[in-house]
Amino acid sequence: MRSEPKRLFPHPSIRRLPSYLRLLRQLRLEGGEKISCTRIAGELALDSTQVRKDLALTGITGRPRIGYELAPLIEAIEGFLGWDQVMDTFLVGAGSLGHALIGYENFIHCGMNIVAAFDVADDKIGQEINGRAIYRLTDMPAMAKRHGVTVGILTVPGRAAQTAANMMVASGLAGIWNFAPVKLDVPANVLVENVELASSLAILSVSMIGKTRAAND
Amino acid sequence: MRSEPKRLFPHPSIRRLPSYLRLLRQLRLEGGEKISCTRIAGELALDSTQVRKDLALTGITGRPRIGYELAPLIEAIEGFLGWDQVMDTFLVGAGSLGHALIGYENFIHCGMNIVAAFDVADDKIGQEINGRAIYRLTDMPAMAKRHGVTVGILTVPGRAAQTAANMMVASGLAGIWNFAPVKLDVPANVLVENVELASSLAILSVSMIGKTRAAND
Repeated sequence: MRSEPKRLFPHPSIRRLPSYLRLLRQLRLEGGEKISCTRIAGELALDSTQVRKDLALTGITGRPRIGYELAPLIEAIEGFLGWDQVMDTFLVGAGSLGHALIGYENFIHCGMNIVAAFDVADDKIGQEINGRAIYRLTDMPAMAKRHGVTVGILTVPGRAAQTAANMMVASGLAGIWNFAPVKLDVPANVLVENVELASSLAILSVSMIGKTRAAND
Repeated sequence: MRSEPKRLFPHPSIRRLPSYLRLLRQLRLEGGEKISCTRIAGELALDSTQVRKDLALTGITGRPRIGYELAPLIEAIEGFLGWDQVMDTFLVGAGSLGHALIGYENFIHCGMNIVAAFDVADDKIGQEINGRAIYRLTDMPAMAKRHGVTVGILTVPGRAAQTAANMMVASGLAGIWNFAPVKLDVPANVLVENVELASSLAILSVSMIGKTRAAND
């Protein structure tokens, strides 16, 4: 056991790191070598003090009047996020959202590798999505053990989510990326990260209402 | 013009409202009539003071020792979010993510109605997804005018996103719900709400790293 207190990173900062990474990789592709905090902030419409703080999480600090060197900064962010390594995952739910996520171009840049899909529908078992075979949900415990997979992506309809999550827990998965609009009931040692599309839609809706009102004033 | 300053609602609070709404609707289905702040907080693993503040945004305040009446609270949240009305939207990009969103069960509870899809691929034009016809991207300006649509959902690949967004802007859309992993360049009067899957994945990745380290300590 460590004696120092548990380090907790602020979630808003972590959420911003991928957008920095995308910008920095783009600049590197364009032949850039250095970048200032101010420019990052400008490109992403953020506050430069916030950018400096966020990037400091990764252990890298910029130099006054010079800024950051791109290559080590990119490496530091990738390392902090664990995206310098490949994380093998299972996809649970081979419906249209599952298809979309298996085909999602951006995951390869996030270290995410979906190695197999699972479903309960007999007619899907044995089929493939983008080269990944679809297995029976009940095959998951054995497959998880064999492949050492500890993270699953849950893309079943809401009504099927808890049952599928139970099987993921029974398979020893320690993390669930949940796309189902349901609060999952899992043991305390299992991490659930919910993708709340409704939360994002709420922001859009409220902003659109504000816009309409402003236009009518 | 109004003389009072523009009211801005805190985004984290707005993001939490859909989860309250989902819980409250479920309780109403189960025959409930009242609920306390403490219970809402307990069910959603939130702080009860925060819950009270969030709900107060909608204009409803609970009563000490009684809490909230379900029906008016649900109505107030729906009204605040504009989800008591139907918002007609266009879907731009009829690929697998577009299919998934058109089929997404939860949108009907968020007032979101996708009325038509658009794509650039000749072989998709004239086809249907779940009863919604797929039109040519260049048909959007006329269609937007005819149907009075002001919001679009962008589900094209990253490399096609800016071109598609330009057509959405040219069609007079005032809001874009952007699923492409790209920062869109649009006029200041066009709202963009980005769905940052990579941000959610970053939280999961960092949490999993923390878990693994704790287990190895």
